[in-house]
Amino acid sequence: MPKFDKHFRMTESDAIEYARNRLPGFKGSNDLSCKEIGDGNINYIFRIEDLITGHSVVIKHADERTRSSGRPLDTDRNRIEAEILRLEREYAPGLVPEIYDYDPVMRCLVMEDLSDHRILRQELLAHRTFPRLAEDVSDFIVSTTLPTLDVVLHPSRKKELVQRYSNPQLCDITERLVYTNPYTNAAGDNKVFPPNLEFVKKELYENSELHLEVAKLKYGFMNNSQALIHGDLHSGSIFVKPNSTKVIDPEFAFFGPIGYDLGNVIGNLCFAWANAFATMESGQERDCYIAWVETTIRDLVDLFQKKFLERFPAVVTDRMASTDGYLEWFLTGILEDAAGTAGLEMIRRTVGVAQVKDLTSIEDSEARIFAERLVIMAGKSFILLRKDFRKSLFIVSTLNEVLSQMRI
Amino acid sequence: MPKFDKHFRMTESDAIEYARNRLPGFKGSNDLSCKEIGDGNINYIFRIEDLITGHSVVIKHADERTRSSGRPLDTDRNRIEAEILRLEREYAPGLVPEIYDYDPVMRCLVMEDLSDHRILRQELLAHRTFPRLAEDVSDFIVSTTLPTLDVVLHPSRKKELVQRYSNPQLCDITERLVYTNPYTNAAGDNKVFPPNLEFVKKELYENSELHLEVAKLKYGFMNNSQALIHGDLHSGSIFVKPNSTKVIDPEFAFFGPIGYDLGNVIGNLCFAWANAFATMESGQERDCYIAWVETTIRDLVDLFQKKFLERFPAVVTDRMASTDGYLEWFLTGILEDAAGTAGLEMIRRTVGVAQVKDLTSIEDSEARIFAERLVIMAGKSFILLRKDFRKSLFIVSTLNEVLSQMRI
Repeated sequence: MPKFDKHFRMTESDAIEYARNRLPGFKGSNDLSCKEIGDGNINYIFRIEDLITGHSVVIKHADERTRSSGRPLDTDRNRIEAEILRLEREYAPGLVPEIYDYDPVMRCLVMEDLSDHRILRQELLAHRTFPRLAEDVSDFIVSTTLPTLDVVLHPSRKKELVQRYSNPQLCDITERLVYTNPYTNAAGDNKVFPPNLEFVKKELYENSELHLEVAKLKYGFMNNSQALIHGDLHSGSIFVKPNSTKVIDPEFAFFGPIGYDLGNVIGNLCFAWANAFATMESGQERDCYIAWVETTIRDLVDLFQKKFLERFPAVVTDRMASTDGYLEWFLTGILEDAAGTAGLEMIRRTVGVAQVKDLTSIEDSEARIFAERLVIMAGKSFILLRKDFRKSLFIVSTLNEVLSQMRI
Repeated sequence: MPKFDKHFRMTESDAIEYARNRLPGFKGSNDLSCKEIGDGNINYIFRIEDLITGHSVVIKHADERTRSSGRPLDTDRNRIEAEILRLEREYAPGLVPEIYDYDPVMRCLVMEDLSDHRILRQELLAHRTFPRLAEDVSDFIVSTTLPTLDVVLHPSRKKELVQRYSNPQLCDITERLVYTNPYTNAAGDNKVFPPNLEFVKKELYENSELHLEVAKLKYGFMNNSQALIHGDLHSGSIFVKPNSTKVIDPEFAFFGPIGYDLGNVIGNLCFAWANAFATMESGQERDCYIAWVETTIRDLVDLFQKKFLERFPAVVTDRMASTDGYLEWFLTGILEDAAGTAGLEMIRRTVGVAQVKDLTSIEDSEARIFAERLVIMAGKSFILLRKDFRKSLFIVSTLNEVLSQMRI
């Protein structure tokens, strides 16, 4: 049987051979280089370049086991990712990498090489600003979710898509890592910064009012099949360069609450905000950076609403959903979910098993203690007060209120 | 090819031949009688009896077209019905007919003959009372929905079931006939009792506050995949005899709001209530019957809540859903949906294309005008005030309030 007719876990040299045999742009080339560039837990990312022509692609290769624990994982996520990337690119052409090929046997997704872009999280760590971010990300969310609503699509077609993109394994990860373990340490794998152990115990583990609100949000994540969402829209899933934004990695996609995507971006911008307070010296540079982060959060919310309000009436097909007041009610629900999700993301990335460099890279211990408490307290407020999120100011003013309370 | 190896629309004599060839209890028997006993639009119901032994079964046979308009209809509903009846019987053993066989080729569902029971709607038309009704129906709803929640089942298993019982075609019927057309006459097929045309125009077609609330309820029906529900639990789907209740016809089953089932039963009991006022002479007999209907509505709601509160803690597996206050929040949502659904059912069965004998059989024109207006106004109140449905009294007190206002 030819080498690539049955799935196996590829190495860099296998990837070169694969490109030479299977990918039109590299057929027969003898000057291919390959580098594994990913650091994820469940996939292998190879960058293939033809050293003569300069042509390059990225291959995302899914294994049947996780790298860390060897736990088996359904490679169907790779099929979902390929299909969703194509759909997203249709809906939001400039904001998603191009897909050249998908090989369901080798579980290889061959796509545009984004080496000229950088991961947003890394850029935020370096306190760089991206003026297009709010415009592009709000555009991505509205453009990719709006066409999948059942008041836009035919409801039967939407139900088909719900079935097709049911994503039980990756939803299960979110349900445990975002909606459960950070509040209960149920799996015993929370990674709390040791000086904050008592703080986390009191503020998170022993707060049943918070648990109740998290449980309600969890209900929505599990039952509200609102739209086809990205499902993992953190700052590691967004690639940027000064005039371009690309959203990648939709393997968590499923039909869930739109606010989950919006809130994830907001939560990750809040990490950037906290990181700046913890690591930058006070002064104009910090003020400018923080002003950009705050403006971006507000613009993201304002532009999201503006675009949704503008585009919805043009595409809605459901007669009842065209009633005055429906769209405002619908958006209010999305904002509530977004505030809740921002809070959940902030808490789980601080105490849960999957952490973020925005916090873990803070070298000064006092500064890290402070930043993590700030993030946790703001996250709690977002969850508990999410019904107040009608104005775009809510997030930024809550952040500043928590900050001023902690400084006293 | 043998006769029953390819689907065709069976007649009574085909059904006899089918029983003789395919059903163990009737193999080779020469004394079979068959009568088509159904009057539905999309299926053929045959009762087969062996005149010697007295053994009898019912065959529910699905055609690929509706009887009335010849519109094509997916026979997959028959597979869903067979599977759901088996599931429901596992969850609520005494309350669902036994399934003997399911033939996916001929789309034949062979089940227990319930000829010793009668259709609840017919019995209510005759103003007969059934003391077990609230007990049995509350038991049916709790027993069949509770085990399918994703805080009870493993969430991945639940997602599998959501896919398996996605029911786009029959949901589409409900979305149009319950949630849209009665308020818009969008399909032009509303059947309004002529003297009430102006009333319906004003109270339903031109009321945008009502449209908005209906649109919100429609959103929940389409997106809230709470539990595996029956989906069509009106008084024509319930068979009764004095000491037994059986729920049939779950072909509309899918993962939707539990309150949809509870509210449907409530709405249909409200028809019985209105029918009694319109057709019975005032006096003790009427008072007794109305008291029974009112008590049944209240008991149904009380018992539903009581059983849910008692049984949920014993089966819940989700840690967050075990938080204090969660179950109360969850039940509040169900009651809201139930009140809304009761109102929707009352309105759509009065003005929509699928009407009920409880109203259409009222011979006196004045009495019918009155009863239909009463039902419409109470239905509107249920929809608009559904957030007040915390106490079981809400339905009955609203009915009486609307009644007293109309009498002034």
